[in-house]
Amino acid sequence: MEPLAVLAGRLPDGAVTTDAATVADRAIDSWSLALLRRSRGDDLPVPAAVVFPAGTDEVATVLAWATEARVAVIPRGGGTGVCGGAVAGAGSIVLDLSRMNKVVDVDPVSQVVRAEAGVRGGQLEDALAPHGLTVGHYPQSIVSSTVGGWIAASSAGQASTGFGAIEDVLLGCTAVLPEGAILRCRPVPRSAAGPDLRRLLVGSEGTLAVVTEATLACRARPAGWDWLVFGFPSFTEMADGLRDALRAETGATVIRGYDEADAQLSFGALGHARGCVGMLGFPASLPGLDARKQQASDAARRAGSFGELDSAYGDHWWQHRHDAVDTYARIMGPDRAFGPGVIVDTFEVAGLWSAVPRLYAGIRDVLAAHARAVLCHLSHLYSSGSSLYFTFLISGADDQDAEARYLAAWDDAVRSCTAAGGTLTHHHGVGRLKAAFLAGELGEAGTGVLKKIKAALDPWQIMNPGVLLP
Amino acid sequence: MEPLAVLAGRLPDGAVTTDAATVADRAIDSWSLALLRRSRGDDLPVPAAVVFPAGTDEVATVLAWATEARVAVIPRGGGTGVCGGAVAGAGSIVLDLSRMNKVVDVDPVSQVVRAEAGVRGGQLEDALAPHGLTVGHYPQSIVSSTVGGWIAASSAGQASTGFGAIEDVLLGCTAVLPEGAILRCRPVPRSAAGPDLRRLLVGSEGTLAVVTEATLACRARPAGWDWLVFGFPSFTEMADGLRDALRAETGATVIRGYDEADAQLSFGALGHARGCVGMLGFPASLPGLDARKQQASDAARRAGSFGELDSAYGDHWWQHRHDAVDTYARIMGPDRAFGPGVIVDTFEVAGLWSAVPRLYAGIRDVLAAHARAVLCHLSHLYSSGSSLYFTFLISGADDQDAEARYLAAWDDAVRSCTAAGGTLTHHHGVGRLKAAFLAGELGEAGTGVLKKIKAALDPWQIMNPGVLLP
Repeated sequence: MEPLAVLAGRLPDGAVTTDAATVADRAIDSWSLALLRRSRGDDLPVPAAVVFPAGTDEVATVLAWATEARVAVIPRGGGTGVCGGAVAGAGSIVLDLSRMNKVVDVDPVSQVVRAEAGVRGGQLEDALAPHGLTVGHYPQSIVSSTVGGWIAASSAGQASTGFGAIEDVLLGCTAVLPEGAILRCRPVPRSAAGPDLRRLLVGSEGTLAVVTEATLACRARPAGWDWLVFGFPSFTEMADGLRDALRAETGATVIRGYDEADAQLSFGALGHARGCVGMLGFPASLPGLDARKQQASDAARRAGSFGELDSAYGDHWWQHRHDAVDTYARIMGPDRAFGPGVIVDTFEVAGLWSAVPRLYAGIRDVLAAHARAVLCHLSHLYSSGSSLYFTFLISGADDQDAEARYLAAWDDAVRSCTAAGGTLTHHHGVGRLKAAFLAGELGEAGTGVLKKIKAALDPWQIMNPGVLLP
Repeated sequence: MEPLAVLAGRLPDGAVTTDAATVADRAIDSWSLALLRRSRGDDLPVPAAVVFPAGTDEVATVLAWATEARVAVIPRGGGTGVCGGAVAGAGSIVLDLSRMNKVVDVDPVSQVVRAEAGVRGGQLEDALAPHGLTVGHYPQSIVSSTVGGWIAASSAGQASTGFGAIEDVLLGCTAVLPEGAILRCRPVPRSAAGPDLRRLLVGSEGTLAVVTEATLACRARPAGWDWLVFGFPSFTEMADGLRDALRAETGATVIRGYDEADAQLSFGALGHARGCVGMLGFPASLPGLDARKQQASDAARRAGSFGELDSAYGDHWWQHRHDAVDTYARIMGPDRAFGPGVIVDTFEVAGLWSAVPRLYAGIRDVLAAHARAVLCHLSHLYSSGSSLYFTFLISGADDQDAEARYLAAWDDAVRSCTAAGGTLTHHHGVGRLKAAFLAGELGEAGTGVLKKIKAALDPWQIMNPGVLLP
């Protein structure tokens, strides 16, 4: 029997499909280069099938079969990854988790939620709202991205300053190992029982296991937001001001800082005229909020803010924070709103505060040499450092030219980041896009450790080959 | 040439010693059963030598030699571990990192400190004080425990509610892999570049690599503490009150809760008469402190507190928080202050809030069946759950009887914890004491993953054999 027929025989009817449109639709994710190649009509690799498991046991069935049959498996959540972490090779199987979309239970005493891996962020938050809870994990992709995808790609939401990134809320999980064994990490707030297996899955991008279920910590859902917005004459003063405001323990949940170009794009609709913008968002119910805001305000002014801006900037950002997803889809999707030869992408690095100025100037300058426009904002701040989120638009004579410029831009930008001491991804992951650069950051010893772990857990290399490790 | 002579030839003079007293002194750590066995004069296994490397390169020399010679290596920090994570087998080499005790540098812009693995906590804090900084990592063992030990044992300090546990402050590190390769994880606030290798080392207990240097995040050093202390009629009401106070986002840095027996022992000197005690410590400079305290106070009262207690409880705890280390040494060390046949030990578990009542009652009851005294406090609180720190005193007819009771107590207590959904260690680690119980918590799949990683990174099993994995 053909291997696919064997698999179909072990699963319920309808779980395996080779329907061409379904397969093509799930062959790539939201990586801009993959979208460009599809939009321009390239002859893309075609996976053999899409499999829709209904639960952990069926995922185990698929992986056991894939190990026997030596077929590559590409786990897929919402398909919102932007680094090619879910771009399938020819003959592989796409493991689409979208039918595993149950919010299993909410424990109101512990304020934790257990959800299947295919649950989307919006759905998760809708299920928590009646309990007055939120996971507080708000990536830009929240409408479509999934719990399993957040874990696999090491996601961080836009309110991570207050709510933490995915590893901070991930208390327990179930995952299927390549040969079909089921790993169950019980939900606990912390454990010292060996290296944290939950943390091994975070950022593993489907190369070590398939996460099928997770228990996430929740918090009280803020009834509303109170925004504090400042103008700064320069990026450096803005960065210093936000850093010092964060260190004042004010309890801001969201902190963001825009360079002049990003501020123009983001707040031009509000008449924003000049300068950089720093923004802090507080849950409106925080005790001592006035004193907290005063302390943040003092820090911003000491760092050189030229004054407070309208709090409407905060509300505007909050209301429009997902718009970029649609804009991106219009530019990179079949509509090609900006015409052919245009690629928009983002590069989100992170480094210590002492490295932030050279990360900013260095990456901006090398991107500017290849791109028509470069914007940057600080999207996730820590007491020790920050992420820098660059958006850049490549405009080539045609698609081929754009692709060449794009690849050159990435090459230069990653080298600049690595030389400045940063990490080449704060929360988008590595995927296929950055796999070749990983050794530049982790060294041969670091990638050697990852390769040994990969070989030990996935000896037949069936799990998402070509992703993360080159 | 004898293997040891080969090693000595590759290192500076004095780096390898076979001096009997030096070797015996470093053959065990602070595990109570190891101390009992030494105190009663057991014929303990004797390591072949103690090696004192002066830097990362010398650690690499030792591990490369150990791989060639197939000699077991027992990494050792301050020797303060209480689970036998640094108990050496016969013929092994103790790798004592105490000469690697330099605070390498402080980056005041990023507020991070880089320190060698053998730097002790007290020394680290002394180096940071002139900068107005603290790592905020205050384990009870801080005077003697080391940066490398904190990472290896997955340590959490007593102010972890505010400052985080070791993984929350660990930004970068250097470690030597079993065959001598040097892994360098650059310091960044967060990275999505694959599974976090820093996190793989946390809790690895010297079984995968030797951490030689780390970069840790700092925070402003609190100028003083402001304490809020409440009395509660029962453990459950106390737990609920502290949980709700924590969730009110008050910014308390230290939160602790004592059951009646522990409160009597801890605060008897202050005339504490009855009930359980819940305690919150705030950095005195927090903005909006009065409002924050009011919110915590409201939460405590709603949960059933019978009123505020003297804030002197907080100061008393802060001043005496390391006393237990000395008491333990007097009981379990050569003085045997309570006579032979007595063992004191601690069991620090963690679980979700919904599991806390059954973890408390279950473990307390099974320990009480074997022990003369059982105390419990909540030592590290989270929005989703808490650790429970049990102290118990075994009193046997003689040392043999005490050892048998002790092992039976552990067996029952761990089973009770596992059955109630908890983890068998919040921050002490696994060591030799709990290795046999690990599969009960992680399952065969979980321990299987750890064993595969161990075999992949340490194929000759030279790194701390018998620890963590049975």
